[in-house]
Amino acid sequence: MSKPKRPPPAESRNATAPKSGGKVPTVRIADLAAASRILAAQGVVDGFGHVSMRHLSAPDRYLMARALAPALVTPKDIIEYDLESNPCNAAGRPSFLERFIHGEIYKARPDIMAVVHSHSPSVIPFGLVDVPMRAMFHNAAFIAAGVPVFDIREKFGATNLLVSDGAKGVALAEIMGSHDIALMRAHGSVACGPTLEAAVFRAVYTEVNARIQHWTTALGEGSPIAALDPEEGRLADALNLGAGMRAWHLWRTMVRSQVKW
Amino acid sequence: MSKPKRPPPAESRNATAPKSGGKVPTVRIADLAAASRILAAQGVVDGFGHVSMRHLSAPDRYLMARALAPALVTPKDIIEYDLESNPCNAAGRPSFLERFIHGEIYKARPDIMAVVHSHSPSVIPFGLVDVPMRAMFHNAAFIAAGVPVFDIREKFGATNLLVSDGAKGVALAEIMGSHDIALMRAHGSVACGPTLEAAVFRAVYTEVNARIQHWTTALGEGSPIAALDPEEGRLADALNLGAGMRAWHLWRTMVRSQVKW
Amino acid sequence: MSKPKRPPPAESRNATAPKSGGKVPTVRIADLAAASRILAAQGVVDGFGHVSMRHLSAPDRYLMARALAPALVTPKDIIEYDLESNPCNAAGRPSFLERFIHGEIYKARPDIMAVVHSHSPSVIPFGLVDVPMRAMFHNAAFIAAGVPVFDIREKFGATNLLVSDGAKGVALAEIMGSHDIALMRAHGSVACGPTLEAAVFRAVYTEVNARIQHWTTALGEGSPIAALDPEEGRLADALNLGAGMRAWHLWRTMVRSQVKW
Amino acid sequence: MSKPKRPPPAESRNATAPKSGGKVPTVRIADLAAASRILAAQGVVDGFGHVSMRHLSAPDRYLMARALAPALVTPKDIIEYDLESNPCNAAGRPSFLERFIHGEIYKARPDIMAVVHSHSPSVIPFGLVDVPMRAMFHNAAFIAAGVPVFDIREKFGATNLLVSDGAKGVALAEIMGSHDIALMRAHGSVACGPTLEAAVFRAVYTEVNARIQHWTTALGEGSPIAALDPEEGRLADALNLGAGMRAWHLWRTMVRSQVKW
Repeated sequence: MSKPKRPPPAESRNATAPKSGGKVPTVRIADLAAASRILAAQGVVDGFGHVSMRHLSAPDRYLMARALAPALVTPKDIIEYDLESNPCNAAGRPSFLERFIHGEIYKARPDIMAVVHSHSPSVIPFGLVDVPMRAMFHNAAFIAAGVPVFDIREKFGATNLLVSDGAKGVALAEIMGSHDIALMRAHGSVACGPTLEAAVFRAVYTEVNARIQHWTTALGEGSPIAALDPEEGRLADALNLGAGMRAWHLWRTMVRSQVKW
Repeated sequence: MSKPKRPPPAESRNATAPKSGGKVPTVRIADLAAASRILAAQGVVDGFGHVSMRHLSAPDRYLMARALAPALVTPKDIIEYDLESNPCNAAGRPSFLERFIHGEIYKARPDIMAVVHSHSPSVIPFGLVDVPMRAMFHNAAFIAAGVPVFDIREKFGATNLLVSDGAKGVALAEIMGSHDIALMRAHGSVACGPTLEAAVFRAVYTEVNARIQHWTTALGEGSPIAALDPEEGRLADALNLGAGMRAWHLWRTMVRSQVKW
Repeated sequence: MSKPKRPPPAESRNATAPKSGGKVPTVRIADLAAASRILAAQGVVDGFGHVSMRHLSAPDRYLMARALAPALVTPKDIIEYDLESNPCNAAGRPSFLERFIHGEIYKARPDIMAVVHSHSPSVIPFGLVDVPMRAMFHNAAFIAAGVPVFDIREKFGATNLLVSDGAKGVALAEIMGSHDIALMRAHGSVACGPTLEAAVFRAVYTEVNARIQHWTTALGEGSPIAALDPEEGRLADALNLGAGMRAWHLWRTMVRSQVKW
Repeated sequence: MSKPKRPPPAESRNATAPKSGGKVPTVRIADLAAASRILAAQGVVDGFGHVSMRHLSAPDRYLMARALAPALVTPKDIIEYDLESNPCNAAGRPSFLERFIHGEIYKARPDIMAVVHSHSPSVIPFGLVDVPMRAMFHNAAFIAAGVPVFDIREKFGATNLLVSDGAKGVALAEIMGSHDIALMRAHGSVACGPTLEAAVFRAVYTEVNARIQHWTTALGEGSPIAALDPEEGRLADALNLGAGMRAWHLWRTMVRSQVKW
C-alpha cells in the first residue's frame, strides 16, 4: 500500500497529451471544486467519488479533480481531459481510475454537461436486489423516467468492480442509455444533468429519495407506493432545473464560508 | 437554470400591490426568521420549505421570507402578503412559488396563526402508502386527531406537484379541514398552530414522530400500536402549547448564538 | 402559550419549603449539570428530559435542574427537593412538572442514587408494541434483567401522559419494581443507577441498544436473537459500573471543553 | 466505580516487564494515535474500542493506547506490549482489559500488522442472528471471504463478554482463522489488515457495509442479494489496499487539522 504522505510517482510529461480546449472561467472551475465539497457535505460521497463538468467551449473535453478525496478538492486540483479520458494538463497529478465513466458518458450523450459518480450507502441496495428505485417526491423527479442497473459482471466477469477503462465506460453508458442515472451493482451510481448544478442536485436527491423509499417500503409492507408517474416526473424535473436550484445557492454559500473561492 | 449569483429579474414596483396591515414588532419578525433557521437545524427543512406567521394586527395579512433557503433567512428577507398571496412589499424580492399554501390556509382557518411547509424525508412515506400516521408520543399529540393526505393528482391531474396557485391551495386547505396537519402525496406536509412557536414545535415533532412510527411498525411486524388515543392527544397537545415550549427556548437560544437578532 | 423570554410567575417564597439536606460539593453539582449536557450531546434528550442525583449526605433529598432544556443547564440551575418533590430552594425558579418520577423512585428504592428520564425516539417503540427490549450487547447489560412497561392509562385513564404528581410517580415506581429501567407507554423511559455516572451510562446505552435491536429484528426477520442472558447481564453490568466508566470520562471532558465548570 | 479524575492505582514498576522491541518512528506512533481518533470520528468506536499496530521491527511486540476513550488518545498514550499482552513501558498507565484480542491475533497470524476492535451498533446484529454479513460493495470487499462469529459462551459459559485473558483471545483467534474479520456475539467485532491504514479502512467500511446490508435486506424482503462473490472480493480488496487509501489521506488530514501531530 502506498504511504499517504509520499507523492505518487510523477508521470513523465507526456509529449502526446491532448491539447486543451481553451480557458474556462475561473468562477466555473471554483464551482466545480465546490461541487466536490458540497457532495461530501451532503453525505453523497465520502473519501471516494467524483464530479466532472464538460468543458464550456470545447464539448470534446471535460474537467475533473485529480485523484483526491472530494472534501479536500480546491480549484488548483482540477485537470482537463479529452473524451478518451487522457489528461491534457496532469503535470504529475494522478487521475481517478474511474474517469472513464465520465469520458464515455460525455461521448455517448451530447446533452449531458456534468456527471457525478458516488457510492452513497442508501442508494447501493437498489443495485443489489430486484426492486426498482422510484421517485418518492418532486425533488427526485428525474428518477421517474426509470433507473437502469449496470452489472459489470455480465460483460466483464469477475472484476474489482471499477469502471477503469474505456470499454467498461462504454458498457455503462450503454446501459444508462437515454436516462440521466444508472446504478452500478455492488458499487454505486451515476447521476447526470444539463448543468453542473443540476447533476449535483440530482445526486443529492437520489440519496434522499433512496432513504425515503427504504422507509416507504418497510411502512407499506408490500402495498403499492403512490410514486411520481413519468409525466409528473417530467413536469417536476423541469421545475427543479429552474426554481429548484435554491438548494445550490445554499450549498455554495456554505462552501464559501469555509474557503476563499 | 438561473445562475445563483445573478439576482432574479426585479419585479417592477406594482402600483396595485396590496396595502400593508401595519408594523409588526421587530422581535416577532426576528422570531419568524429564526423559525426558518430552527427548522433547518432540526432537519425538518433543507434547501427548501418555508414557515409563515399571520400578521399580528391584520388577520388578512401574513409574513414569510422571500424565496431563499431557510438556513439563510434573516429578518430583512421577510415579506408581507395578503391572503391572495400577493406581496405588499416585495421590492423586487422573489416570492416562494408555494406561498398559496399559506394564504389559503389562513383564509380557511381563522384560528391558525402560523404554517410550516416542509419535505422532511421521514414524513413523506406516510403520503405514499395507505398507512395513517398516528401519535407515537406526547410531544406529537396533535397528530392523534388524524392526518389527512392531499393528492394533488385527484383534482389537478399530472402536475409538477407544487401548490403553485390559489386553486391548489384551496384544495389542500379543504382536505386539511379542521386538522392542523396535512400530508401531501409525493411532496411533503403542512403543520399549523395557534402561534409561531406551536407550528414550529409541531413540525419538528411530526418529523420525530414519523421516525418513531417507522421503527415501531418494523418492530411490531403488524401487531397493534398503543398510540395516543384522541382524548390523550387533546390533553397532551394542550400541555405542549404551554409548558412544552421549553424546546422553543432552546432552539431560539441556539439561533441567537449565531446571529445578532 | 407563555412567551419564552418572559420569566415564569415567581413563586412566593414559601414559608413551608422543606429544609436543605446540607451542602453538596461544588464538583458534584457541576457533574450533575454536565450530565444534562452529556445526555443532550448523546441524543438521549432533546429540549426535554431530566437527570437527578440523590443528595450525597441526606438520602431524603435529591438535586435536579430547574425546568430548562438539558443542553442549557448550568450549576446555578440546580434545585434541591425533598422526596415529595417540594423544592427546598426554588427562589422563583420553575420546577419540572415530572419531578415526581424522581422523588417517588428515590422513596421506593434506597439503592438508587441517580435517575434519568428521557424520550429518546429509538426507545419509545418498545413501549408501544408487545416486543420486550433485550440486551443486545455488553454495554447495555443492565437490560438483561428485564424491562417493565408502565402504561399510565391503566390506572389513570386518559391523561396528558405526564407523571405530574406523586400518585403517578408511585405507580411508575411500582411497575419498575426492582429493575433499574422502565419504559413509559407513548412517552419515554427511566434509567437509574447506583451513581450519577452509571445512570447516565445506562440511559445512553439504552438508546444505543434500542437502535441495535431494531436492526437485529429486521435482519433476523423473526428468528431468535442471541441476546445476553440474565447471568451474562449481571456479570457485564458489574464491569460497566467500573471499567466501563471510561465513556463518562470522555463525555465529561467534552463538556469541560465548552464550559468552565 | 472509580472516579474519573482520580488516577488509577499506579502499577509498581514491574521488574519483570518485557523488554522493548526498539524505537518506532515518531510519525508512526502519531499515525496510530490518529487512527483512534479517525475511528471515533467515523462512528466505528465511541467511548470504547481500540486499535493496535504490530511493532515495525520486532514482530513479537505491538503498540496500543492506554485504557482511554479513542477520541482522546495522543501519541504519549501509546504503550508497547509483548504478545502475551504484558506492557513493556506502562509506567503506571492502565491497559485495556481486552488487549488479549490483539496479542493473540498477532501470535496466530504473522501476516496481520494491525487490529481494530469495536462495538459499532450497525455491525452487532450480524453476531446476534443467523444471517451472514456479505460484501455489499467494493469498499468492503474483504468481507466477501466470509465473516465468522465468535460466541464466547460456547467455550467459557456465562461471562461478562470481554476477551479479558489469553485463553479467550486464543479462542477468538481460532474462530477468526484465516479471515481478517470476526464478529463477537453480543459484543462487537475485530477487523485486521496488513497495515494500520488497511485495518482502519476495513473497520470503517465494515460499519458502512452493515448499514447497506440492513437496508438491502429490508428492501429485498428475502430475495437474493447480488453481493460480491469471493473472486470479486479478492480483486477489489487488492485495489482497496492501494488506490483505495485515499480515504486514509482524508481522515489523517482531518485529524491534523485538530492536533499538532
